[in-house]
Amino acid sequence: MGYTEDDELAINTIRLLAVDATFKANSGHPGAPMGMAPVAHVLFNKFMTFNPKNADWVNRDRFVLSNGHGCMLQYALLHLFGFGLTMDDLKAFRQVDSKTPGHPEANEVPGIEVTTGPLGQGFANAVGLAIAQAHTAAEFNKPGYELINNHTFAFFGDGCAMEGIASEAASTAGHLQLGNLVMIYDDNHISIDGDTNCAFTEDVSKRFEAYGWHVQHVKDGDHDLEGIEAAIAKAKEVKDKPSMIKLTTTIGFGSKLQGTGGVHGNALKEDDCKAVKEKFGFKPEESFVVPQKVYEMYHAHGAEGAAKEEEWNKMFEKYGKEYPEQHKDLVRRLSGKLPEGWQKSLPTYKPTDKAEATRKLSEAVLEAIHEAVPDLIGGSADLTGSNNTRWKNAVDFQPPDIKAPGNWAGRYIRYGVREHGMAGIMNGISAYGTLIPFGGTFLNFVSYAAGSVRLSSLSHCRVIYVATHDSIGLGEDGPTHQPIETLAHFRALPNMMVWRPADGNETSAAYYVALISKSTPSILALTRQNLPQLENSTIENAIKGGYVAVENEGADITLVSTGSEVGICIETVKYLKDNHSLTARVVSLPCWEVFDAQSKEYRLKVIPDGIPSMSVEVMSTLGWEKYSHEQFGLNRFGASGPYKDVYKKFEFTPEGISKRAVATVDFYKGMKPRSPLNRAFQQLI
Amino acid sequence: MGYTEDDELAINTIRLLAVDATFKANSGHPGAPMGMAPVAHVLFNKFMTFNPKNADWVNRDRFVLSNGHGCMLQYALLHLFGFGLTMDDLKAFRQVDSKTPGHPEANEVPGIEVTTGPLGQGFANAVGLAIAQAHTAAEFNKPGYELINNHTFAFFGDGCAMEGIASEAASTAGHLQLGNLVMIYDDNHISIDGDTNCAFTEDVSKRFEAYGWHVQHVKDGDHDLEGIEAAIAKAKEVKDKPSMIKLTTTIGFGSKLQGTGGVHGNALKEDDCKAVKEKFGFKPEESFVVPQKVYEMYHAHGAEGAAKEEEWNKMFEKYGKEYPEQHKDLVRRLSGKLPEGWQKSLPTYKPTDKAEATRKLSEAVLEAIHEAVPDLIGGSADLTGSNNTRWKNAVDFQPPDIKAPGNWAGRYIRYGVREHGMAGIMNGISAYGTLIPFGGTFLNFVSYAAGSVRLSSLSHCRVIYVATHDSIGLGEDGPTHQPIETLAHFRALPNMMVWRPADGNETSAAYYVALISKSTPSILALTRQNLPQLENSTIENAIKGGYVAVENEGADITLVSTGSEVGICIETVKYLKDNHSLTARVVSLPCWEVFDAQSKEYRLKVIPDGIPSMSVEVMSTLGWEKYSHEQFGLNRFGASGPYKDVYKKFEFTPEGISKRAVATVDFYKGMKPRSPLNRAFQQLI
Ligand SMILES: [Ca+2]
Ligand SMILES: [Ca+2]
Repeated sequence: MGYTEDDELAINTIRLLAVDATFKANSGHPGAPMGMAPVAHVLFNKFMTFNPKNADWVNRDRFVLSNGHGCMLQYALLHLFGFGLTMDDLKAFRQVDSKTPGHPEANEVPGIEVTTGPLGQGFANAVGLAIAQAHTAAEFNKPGYELINNHTFAFFGDGCAMEGIASEAASTAGHLQLGNLVMIYDDNHISIDGDTNCAFTEDVSKRFEAYGWHVQHVKDGDHDLEGIEAAIAKAKEVKDKPSMIKLTTTIGFGSKLQGTGGVHGNALKEDDCKAVKEKFGFKPEESFVVPQKVYEMYHAHGAEGAAKEEEWNKMFEKYGKEYPEQHKDLVRRLSGKLPEGWQKSLPTYKPTDKAEATRKLSEAVLEAIHEAVPDLIGGSADLTGSNNTRWKNAVDFQPPDIKAPGNWAGRYIRYGVREHGMAGIMNGISAYGTLIPFGGTFLNFVSYAAGSVRLSSLSHCRVIYVATHDSIGLGEDGPTHQPIETLAHFRALPNMMVWRPADGNETSAAYYVALISKSTPSILALTRQNLPQLENSTIENAIKGGYVAVENEGADITLVSTGSEVGICIETVKYLKDNHSLTARVVSLPCWEVFDAQSKEYRLKVIPDGIPSMSVEVMSTLGWEKYSHEQFGLNRFGASGPYKDVYKKFEFTPEGISKRAVATVDFYKGMKPRSPLNRAFQQLI
Repeated sequence: MGYTEDDELAINTIRLLAVDATFKANSGHPGAPMGMAPVAHVLFNKFMTFNPKNADWVNRDRFVLSNGHGCMLQYALLHLFGFGLTMDDLKAFRQVDSKTPGHPEANEVPGIEVTTGPLGQGFANAVGLAIAQAHTAAEFNKPGYELINNHTFAFFGDGCAMEGIASEAASTAGHLQLGNLVMIYDDNHISIDGDTNCAFTEDVSKRFEAYGWHVQHVKDGDHDLEGIEAAIAKAKEVKDKPSMIKLTTTIGFGSKLQGTGGVHGNALKEDDCKAVKEKFGFKPEESFVVPQKVYEMYHAHGAEGAAKEEEWNKMFEKYGKEYPEQHKDLVRRLSGKLPEGWQKSLPTYKPTDKAEATRKLSEAVLEAIHEAVPDLIGGSADLTGSNNTRWKNAVDFQPPDIKAPGNWAGRYIRYGVREHGMAGIMNGISAYGTLIPFGGTFLNFVSYAAGSVRLSSLSHCRVIYVATHDSIGLGEDGPTHQPIETLAHFRALPNMMVWRPADGNETSAAYYVALISKSTPSILALTRQNLPQLENSTIENAIKGGYVAVENEGADITLVSTGSEVGICIETVKYLKDNHSLTARVVSLPCWEVFDAQSKEYRLKVIPDGIPSMSVEVMSTLGWEKYSHEQFGLNRFGASGPYKDVYKKFEFTPEGISKRAVATVDFYKGMKPRSPLNRAFQQLI
């Protein structure tokens, strides 16, 4: 407590950096930074522990700006504390190739924990960070060694509060009693459409109480620094509930347009910039000004953080002597590497092994590797028995003392029917740095989570979506549950590996690549129905993303396929020979993204020049032209029925495939078509 | 009140139809129908007015089963009331081409209002149906003529209650004070993962109170028919709040496994089927039994509904004499046709007209046609000023007496930052039958609504997504907001028209086709930045989905493009001629789905044989192989900066396009490639 004019000065410095940067860019959102500068000043200086010189220290307090459009607030703080954003970086706000993009990007700037801006995402990420903290503490803390005890703090606005993903994550956090989570709601009564009275009149505090949160209200967030400090201190005291502090602020505080939508998403006008500077005792004609005093205050706090890390390092060293294995494990986890030799645990299969659904084969992988890879923490959006995501002796991740078994050290998360929340939480868990999250739902409902899945890719999160019931092969549940467009959607998403394995070895390969890829998420599309173990399928072949499943000299056609259709294509080879005297070869292409990364020489061996090729996959053909001349797929919705009947209805049988293969061979008669892999030019990457 | 054994008999008949149908299919969800049969019996017989012989009567009460997996409940009711589902249809439950698919599909079965199953969707649809009722009543009711006064009733379970979309829709319904909406929450404490204690321990009632709902609790939903009736009656009395009745039930009531997850998603075992029949006084060896008494009771209620429709028809006829215009308008709306000559209001442009962003041109369309097409009701997910979705003198759709302007007759909906909720609500509004909803957000955030967008397509809803800021052309907001995969995603979705107009005439064309397509939704991808009005662009050309924008005899290459890149391609024609002595022609392809429906002859005129073609679009190239030999796109995330700098960074300039066009021409030198439109065989549709 005991705030002075220096605090006021620091707060106004932050406000004006936001004013100047948005004015210079003529773009951006000054309103939220101006309104939230007081709480940011108090939170970062009085409560948060971090070392600006080592943004990766594992026990740092985490901060998430869920209302990411207010990122100039965060950039200003990072600059003032000395995180390595220079004044020139602030001046380059929202310019191409700057370190200060329009919304905060985790993989671009040290000190940014997660990528935010798409509303509600940061909220869910914060819940994920808090889950990761609770679990990592339970795994590594020992008597006398409270290695992991950081808090997660987050800001969110009306927009986040309205988003469904935030509701899902808030309900989850309340259930999980995440006492290490403190979120501050910027109650400024303004959203882009104006006064929130036009669309958002619910009682937010009561809603959070209903979720099981501890809720407070600070009525004057513009001035009451003591009140803010007291509320955060109180929130930290509450250990068995997440805390929400409703903070009533004035958006664009200090501007002529303060308290209105006019200051939300537009730079202040020039005269307003000048007026607000004068009001705050700054020189109206100067820009990007930081009084030396403010730097000193912030650097001093940064130095305290560095000293705390130093102390922590000593404790960790000592811990290493007492608990050498745990020490080694934590050091390894933080490096992003997996334990030596873990991959030996991956199951392998022979063609004579019994037919299994790939969702079951995925379960077998988890069963086999969960001890070798202790970083794995997973769950399902209330489809555990269908997604097969839980190994036999798994313990649930649960708070103590609830009417459900489990504890903080448990590695199985009951996400509830909350796909979007689950995905946002997984991104947060991944960002914490000690865990690799996986989460299950039906492939069709990964689409519910599309907003977060996109951010898994953009922010380089190693997360694994276990997406079962991957096609019309789910049968009776029908078109409402049968994906058609889903693989095309996620194949078009940059930095996403979409796997559709055809059998056991391919499923193991998918996990292998997913787990060793430190900065790329994966979606594993898995069947409900049983599939045979294939002849040429090996982990070695499949980790190339594509390989020849059936070779045939002088083939008339290449059938290119994935997942459940590869086996049918292999049957088709015989059908074509017997009924049409045609010779076919078959390619299994479980992951385009990985196949595309192989040498051209290899790829052309798989899909060679001179032979027409046809893709076979029971969903949208969109994009298959990249790997085939002709496409057999399903560009319509599916049907409800036993899956064999549904396959038959849509002609995904040796006969139906053959019919189209014959048409393809005829169409290319007398031609030696170039492989579709040959292109005129390279794509920008 | 006054329930007898006959009521009990009817309830058990419904339960057993669900038991028999799921047993026969060896698939499906008996638990919810067995638990909710009592409330369904009371609701349908004591409160709901409908005519089974005319499922489309506009003033019928609407029913939504948001927990759509329980559809055998709904199918049983439709059968008992005589809606045209036969006993054979029930016996064909979950079989290919039956009228009783695994989840209820609105366009397949009369009496099913909306397609449900994907959790939370029905909840949002019900809110949309209630909005449509309130608005239609405000538009058409007159003193002495309460034409439109139906209620919307819905059931939802724990799964729906956990989904973010339901939270969004519930908050909206509370804000809007939808007193015509009564939702019953099946509080059975079970979800697929088992006891809801493992993931869902919030206070649902308190949460709904926080949203502004009227909340009640009926503690014995298995037996207390009087209590159920009283609660629904009370809910109907509350006119200024939506009502939620928490109904505690036993899932799978009567089964040996009642009250457990075992009865949620699996048919009962044979001995359990027999036991439950015995318990209910039915013969254990008989199946699909309906006592005549039950038919009589239900048919009697159906006949009451038919009589009420008859009365209503008389009132409507009389209304027609007093209010002939309104009468005519309502009759027309119910036919799905637009007013004669409405399209004459569509704006048209000359090449000399000024450059404009297509989002502004979309606003111009809405401004021009909103009087001619009174069916239009629109809004935005809190981006009104950016999406340009509001015509100048629009009135907001709002309840009376709140601190925001508007009234029930208003045609502009303030959706708040709730994209998924908005889309689900739009599907519900569309299903009501009197309105055509449109809703705005950034194209990137249509992905948040993917679950509902998919159902717009599957259930043939005429809804329009106004999706602005459609590419890296949005500039400074950066990669978090710049769509890359979005168009590929929705182009792969069956029965969805994705439009990306290049100028004013194309924008008018997009609205024209979107509005006349009664059973297909549309996404209009619109720019933030200004675009020139193009030479050959006319509404007539653009409504074909694709046309030649620049013809050139003996061209070396066809550039195929959409939206903002068409103008750049036209500039490229000159650049190629001046710098590389190459002749190019340009095709604008604003909507694939519509172009694909043109004659092959026409399509081959647009993208002819013998010339290599290259697509140009600043996002994922996925799928463009359908219309081009080579693709120039952006298969990576974008960048934050002024949009012209971003376009330059990624080489979407005449120079950058030319570089790739030259490579394409070289690659095909000496060949006369077939048009990519020539295919070996037709796709299944
Ligand atoms: Ca706000
Ligand atoms: Ca339930």
